[in-house]
Amino acid sequence: MIGVDWGTTSFRAYRLRGRTVLDRLALPLGILSVTEGRFEQALQDAVAPWLADGERRILMSGMIGSRQGWIEAPYLPCPAATADLAGALIRVPFDTAELLLVPGLTATDPAGVPEVMRGEEVQIFGALDSASADTTVCLPGSHSKWAHVASGSIESFSTHLTGEAFAALRSHTILGRLMQADAPPDADAFHRGVLRSAAPGGLLHHLFGVRTLGLFAQLPEAASASYLSGLLIGHEVHAAAAGSNVLLIGAGALCELYGQAIALCGGSATLAKADAAAQGLALIGEQAAWTSRSS
Amino acid sequence: MIGVDWGTTSFRAYRLRGRTVLDRLALPLGILSVTEGRFEQALQDAVAPWLADGERRILMSGMIGSRQGWIEAPYLPCPAATADLAGALIRVPFDTAELLLVPGLTATDPAGVPEVMRGEEVQIFGALDSASADTTVCLPGSHSKWAHVASGSIESFSTHLTGEAFAALRSHTILGRLMQADAPPDADAFHRGVLRSAAPGGLLHHLFGVRTLGLFAQLPEAASASYLSGLLIGHEVHAAAAGSNVLLIGAGALCELYGQAIALCGGSATLAKADAAAQGLALIGEQAAWTSRSS
Repeated sequence: MIGVDWGTTSFRAYRLRGRTVLDRLALPLGILSVTEGRFEQALQDAVAPWLADGERRILMSGMIGSRQGWIEAPYLPCPAATADLAGALIRVPFDTAELLLVPGLTATDPAGVPEVMRGEEVQIFGALDSASADTTVCLPGSHSKWAHVASGSIESFSTHLTGEAFAALRSHTILGRLMQADAPPDADAFHRGVLRSAAPGGLLHHLFGVRTLGLFAQLPEAASASYLSGLLIGHEVHAAAAGSNVLLIGAGALCELYGQAIALCGGSATLAKADAAAQGLALIGEQAAWTSRSS
Repeated sequence: MIGVDWGTTSFRAYRLRGRTVLDRLALPLGILSVTEGRFEQALQDAVAPWLADGERRILMSGMIGSRQGWIEAPYLPCPAATADLAGALIRVPFDTAELLLVPGLTATDPAGVPEVMRGEEVQIFGALDSASADTTVCLPGSHSKWAHVASGSIESFSTHLTGEAFAALRSHTILGRLMQADAPPDADAFHRGVLRSAAPGGLLHHLFGVRTLGLFAQLPEAASASYLSGLLIGHEVHAAAAGSNVLLIGAGALCELYGQAIALCGGSATLAKADAAAQGLALIGEQAAWTSRSS
């Protein structure tokens, strides 16, 4: 089987035999980069060698199933287990192989506000130890996701606009004037930002402190971006899961920062094994109602 | 006397006789708009008719006393009363009149992070009823200020980056994609945003809700900017002064929104009388050690 994790800015494909990754592919071919919505052609080109080698099943997940993607898949409501996802796969017309799409998930927060994810649900199931009990999972990013998993189901989740807020505040407010684009990460300033997030006054007040600490030379200019990052991640961690044991899924550097922030906020973090998306696609693929024969 | 409230983006001058405003001037001549730092010439040109008419004393306040302004005035520490400000005026060389500059104020929040204001201190004293006891004052804006006044002194204050965060989030994140630049304010959406700010989950989570409510057609696209505004102002009000009686200083439309938000958060608000800056400059001018004779 071929598993494809197709997001807004990235395209990752895996040639799978059971849960073993035989081959892999990462292209800068996020759905926003596919010219005129030629998704079929893009997929065809990307995995042509594997198709030529006999693969006949493709399972896709991620933003490719959104309104901006190839086909809009209705969200499946939480709680949802892998069997629920496998039972709700969307069949997508494709010439040279059978192509199925994993739907995203939706949930409602206690105040009735909807939540959505597309692709993270596959990574979460792929990252979980089959023996694991209740787990809090975090996928850091532009739109960080925090999910609560119990009895093999994603029960609920919440999204935090942390990464995107960081970029907007750094590049488009007075805070950025003190920052240097090429400054290396500053671990001490990051820690100070995280600790500051626990103080009263609220995030909007804490943000102004990034400027005043700089004005009063209490924070080096080269360190202010790291301080801002710590402040925002700290606010996210406090709101989402202070004190929990958190399973982190994602790229090394950002997960490392989240691990530090979680520890400073009184919790503990474990980094998920790599290839969570590939493992999740394999798991769901095992339960899918394929009509073609496996190669 | 001439009073000048000279900020980052605006220049307001008042011809005063005691506390009476005889004449006034508002120019788009904020310190960022003054070519090559020719502040002396700009002031000379702006108030030339009043100088020609015999005025010999000018008192300035605002960002004109910052590093980006004419002369950098050291901040005066809180607590500070009008007499403290009057005793710390900075003399600025100027040909045709005696020119004094009100210093800004600094304070330290409970966690040791510095706070600064330049110009708002004058508006606060100008807005206070001389008979008023302890007062919480709010000046809404790009960098909203909340001050606590007791026994005629500004005891402490805090700044919230609310207005600037709103602009950055609206124009430079995915939230803006749902917004229409020319949509009229939506009072109902603003209220919903304020009420949402009281829910758990934190601001970064609430921000993502602006998107999902739009995606699920639970918030009209034309209303999402007002919802975002309510969310941010609500977070500010909860952090700064939930439940207080607040004296609001500033322009009508924004103060109106803050008044609604404060009421929704369980407090009450009073709008300060107009010309707070002129009144404050007059008050401080009365206590200043002028060497020239009044005209």
